[in-house]
Amino acid sequence: MMMKNCEKYEVGYFMPPEPSMEWINKDHLEKAPAWCSVDLRDGNQALIVPMSLNEKVEFFRFLVSLGFKEIEVGFPAASETEYEFLRTLIEKDMIPDDVTVQVLTQSREHIIAKTFESLKGAKKAIVHLYNSTSLAQREQVFKKDRQEIIDIAVSGAKLMNEYAKKMPETEFQFEYSPESFTGTEIDFAEAICNAVIDIWEPTPEKKVIINLPATVSMSMPHVYAAQISYMSHHLHNRENVILSLHPHNDRGTAVADAELGLLAGGDRIEGTLFGNGERTGNVDIVTLAMNLFSHGVDPELDFSNMPKVVEAYEKYTDMKVHPRQPYGGQLVFAAFSGSHQDAIAKGMKYREDKHMHRWMVPYLPIDPHDVGREYDADVIRINSQSGKGGIAYILEQNYGFHIPVKMREEIGYMIKGVSDHSHKELTPAEVYETFKNEYINKFNPIDITDATFRKNSTYKGDDGYTVDIHVNIAGTEYFFTASGNGRLDAVSNALRQSKLYSFDYTFVTYAEHALEAESNSRAAAYVAIADANGKVYWGVGMHEDIILASINALVSAINRLNQVSHFITK
Amino acid sequence: MMMKNCEKYEVGYFMPPEPSMEWINKDHLEKAPAWCSVDLRDGNQALIVPMSLNEKVEFFRFLVSLGFKEIEVGFPAASETEYEFLRTLIEKDMIPDDVTVQVLTQSREHIIAKTFESLKGAKKAIVHLYNSTSLAQREQVFKKDRQEIIDIAVSGAKLMNEYAKKMPETEFQFEYSPESFTGTEIDFAEAICNAVIDIWEPTPEKKVIINLPATVSMSMPHVYAAQISYMSHHLHNRENVILSLHPHNDRGTAVADAELGLLAGGDRIEGTLFGNGERTGNVDIVTLAMNLFSHGVDPELDFSNMPKVVEAYEKYTDMKVHPRQPYGGQLVFAAFSGSHQDAIAKGMKYREDKHMHRWMVPYLPIDPHDVGREYDADVIRINSQSGKGGIAYILEQNYGFHIPVKMREEIGYMIKGVSDHSHKELTPAEVYETFKNEYINKFNPIDITDATFRKNSTYKGDDGYTVDIHVNIAGTEYFFTASGNGRLDAVSNALRQSKLYSFDYTFVTYAEHALEAESNSRAAAYVAIADANGKVYWGVGMHEDIILASINALVSAINRLNQVSHFITK
Repeated sequence: MMMKNCEKYEVGYFMPPEPSMEWINKDHLEKAPAWCSVDLRDGNQALIVPMSLNEKVEFFRFLVSLGFKEIEVGFPAASETEYEFLRTLIEKDMIPDDVTVQVLTQSREHIIAKTFESLKGAKKAIVHLYNSTSLAQREQVFKKDRQEIIDIAVSGAKLMNEYAKKMPETEFQFEYSPESFTGTEIDFAEAICNAVIDIWEPTPEKKVIINLPATVSMSMPHVYAAQISYMSHHLHNRENVILSLHPHNDRGTAVADAELGLLAGGDRIEGTLFGNGERTGNVDIVTLAMNLFSHGVDPELDFSNMPKVVEAYEKYTDMKVHPRQPYGGQLVFAAFSGSHQDAIAKGMKYREDKHMHRWMVPYLPIDPHDVGREYDADVIRINSQSGKGGIAYILEQNYGFHIPVKMREEIGYMIKGVSDHSHKELTPAEVYETFKNEYINKFNPIDITDATFRKNSTYKGDDGYTVDIHVNIAGTEYFFTASGNGRLDAVSNALRQSKLYSFDYTFVTYAEHALEAESNSRAAAYVAIADANGKVYWGVGMHEDIILASINALVSAINRLNQVSHFITK
Repeated sequence: MMMKNCEKYEVGYFMPPEPSMEWINKDHLEKAPAWCSVDLRDGNQALIVPMSLNEKVEFFRFLVSLGFKEIEVGFPAASETEYEFLRTLIEKDMIPDDVTVQVLTQSREHIIAKTFESLKGAKKAIVHLYNSTSLAQREQVFKKDRQEIIDIAVSGAKLMNEYAKKMPETEFQFEYSPESFTGTEIDFAEAICNAVIDIWEPTPEKKVIINLPATVSMSMPHVYAAQISYMSHHLHNRENVILSLHPHNDRGTAVADAELGLLAGGDRIEGTLFGNGERTGNVDIVTLAMNLFSHGVDPELDFSNMPKVVEAYEKYTDMKVHPRQPYGGQLVFAAFSGSHQDAIAKGMKYREDKHMHRWMVPYLPIDPHDVGREYDADVIRINSQSGKGGIAYILEQNYGFHIPVKMREEIGYMIKGVSDHSHKELTPAEVYETFKNEYINKFNPIDITDATFRKNSTYKGDDGYTVDIHVNIAGTEYFFTASGNGRLDAVSNALRQSKLYSFDYTFVTYAEHALEAESNSRAAAYVAIADANGKVYWGVGMHEDIILASINALVSAINRLNQVSHFITK
């Protein structure tokens, strides 16, 4: 036994009798739930340094800009800061007509009174009553029996009816949470929620919210869903009840709890951006919303500028978004590994070639552009694990080089090696720099300083060329003349005439294209030559003149061969 | 519509025909799966800077120390570093007899050959063959039909049989992954896995591993579980197949995928510490293991020193563990809010009083001590959201003060206020410092410089006391004599004799106890007095002499009352 202390634990949740599991036959959600942000309450109270009044006001505005229509703003009777914050929102008329603020209250008269007082002048408000209902809390904290705990909830519910009557100018909606629901016997949760519903007597015009929090997540997600399903089937006046879920992430399953809970009957989610909140946090609304998006469902929240959402969140909470946080993290679209980069590059090309509407690129669950991310900076990233596909993609997307397929492996190994030895990631600019230094216009020790061509109609009866070239080889000028069936071939043949050096290579292949990325339309040429053993060397030439580009490529290839073979020795 | 681009997405997974959902009737896992760490392969390849050889060797040893019996060490044919790493492990005899290294290979002969070569001298090894099988990859990347993709897998499987035969000194186990399983039609996944199983012909003595990765997570977790269940029912020779799961976290549901997948037939998990890995990462094995632990199941991995696990992980990967990461994050046991602190403090006391074996403390899913965390530093943390319960808990646990219940609210508001105004969290030492400065031995402007008691048998016929006290009030010495029914009462009466000042207070209550935490056994005394309006002021005295402790407490209370009422004016 590796961890003997496991013996002090047992499952602490309560399965419903005859769990109803029909929800499992649905495989995805077809619409967004009602969203309620609890960033300013549950999120805020879990911060090492809670937000200041000004930070709360700014964060509230930011949540509104993302499309939240229900925002829990705090526990105004419990803290002066939260009271002032709510008063500021109301008195400075900062709450849009389609947004409802929600406030939390315990079931004690002076707290309820102060809560209603804090809402004076609000057009609409959700008043959220809670008391703790779990077996553990009843026994250990409140030392009360079931009926006494129900009495707490019912007395608060009645007081809310009374206080709301005194403020007819505000449109109130009521919410009740059996706090610590996941540690509550399911029949007791049913009894207490129904007791509150019976007091509030919801109607189609005035629905109530029953919120079933996984205050502490205690079970596998389908167990929570089974509990939600049971409650959904057993709540009084169900058609006038909005069933709300409020999962925490103690078991790393808050997203699954929320999703399966919604399938099982939930209508509404209370959560936070990036899952801020008590301990392991609340359910992450960004992930839930983007999961819907990735299945073709409008999330009814706007995360199209994710970098801005991350920036705002980090500013207000002083928490960091983890690099692997779904949809928002810095690395979540990153592909370092060669095979992934290759598949992404091919998938993107396929998509473009076929004019595909539907997103189906391998390894990218959604198009990074849809959340304001860039392919270059965020997706194909180059380190020692990377491959030819990714490196070719970077050179193509950022610098316009269509690297010949046969050349990619060589470049891939070379760039990976640089990253491996320097022990760091290479930016696209560093990839280009490395590529340029190694391959392009490499004029040492051989440099063609001048070349003059003339059409050669006599050469083997073809329209070949003759060239006069001036070549600088390791500091000395030479002059050669030769013919060939093309200009490049003529240059190659001229170089071979050198008696001083053994230019022992064969010509393998050649490719050339215009560099579209550049305004001055330079051409890039690629030449492969092979040494006596058949080993291939590539060179790249760049020039406005396509002939000179190809000659530069040839010279670069010869110089690279020489680096290894040293056929030119001083 | 908030995010119009959702129209370019559809669900990309494939539901099995007649999904078998009987797994849903189990509510929790009863034993740990076989664990395979892929930290050194999948985790490493997703790092901005992959690990060096030395870092890998150290991390490997660390994984072994945690109890991992299967560790994927890399892709030795794809990278020189990974090849060298494996050779180092084998040649330096670093692989314990009960640990098996696992290596990844593509289905190409030169890669398979190099993979087997890299294993020369290993006692045991898992050779892990993969090829990509999803619809998207077949169409866009490989441009091959189903049969051609099956042929890739089958030819690799055959080569592995051949190469293994040539190395009889090594005990090989084979693993096959239809990579991108979650984007693969379920009947095709079935066909390709069975084709490989048929080549390998597993036996009870030589089982094979079929690994079904959520390479990209594309569905809700019960859909993945339904796919696993289908595969579990349709694999050939199922009793000799170890069904392995390898979930990624694109939808934030990797833990749920793994857990429901295990219920649905999975036997084995490939994952990483804290979920490192491609993009959003792999499933977090720490969370999976500790979820089992919290249900009373031995995880068969040792996370009893979580701070050390976090430290090692951060060192080797250069990634941070998020403060809200389940079980490992810095804040996951923290309670800042008053009601949570109060419930935890009461729950801990209840547990102690009742000698409970079973862990049931509210808001703490597991005992922080079981993972090497401290209650003081990690659980009850004090900021402006905190409450009397938590503050009293800190003063009791760390400094030995049993703060009287009626005094707690006042202290609570005072400490919260200090945190609120200074806009920061208070350490236990700062809480104590604040408490001390405000309440303990507060001798200004009133200070009793000497007190002599004598037993007073005549006073109202009781055994009362008479006291002579020297008092310094705002710089001037006074002498008073008075009697009372106890020594503290006598002092109080003596002070009231001052004609210069109006000591207008009534005595409310008193408590005293030895400070167990201290070796010199000082006493702490608590005195409450009320002003003319009934407002209560507390004072605390500390002294080796219990009489002086109580007098100090009284004087402190009077000085605190004076601060507000200014009944002593200079």
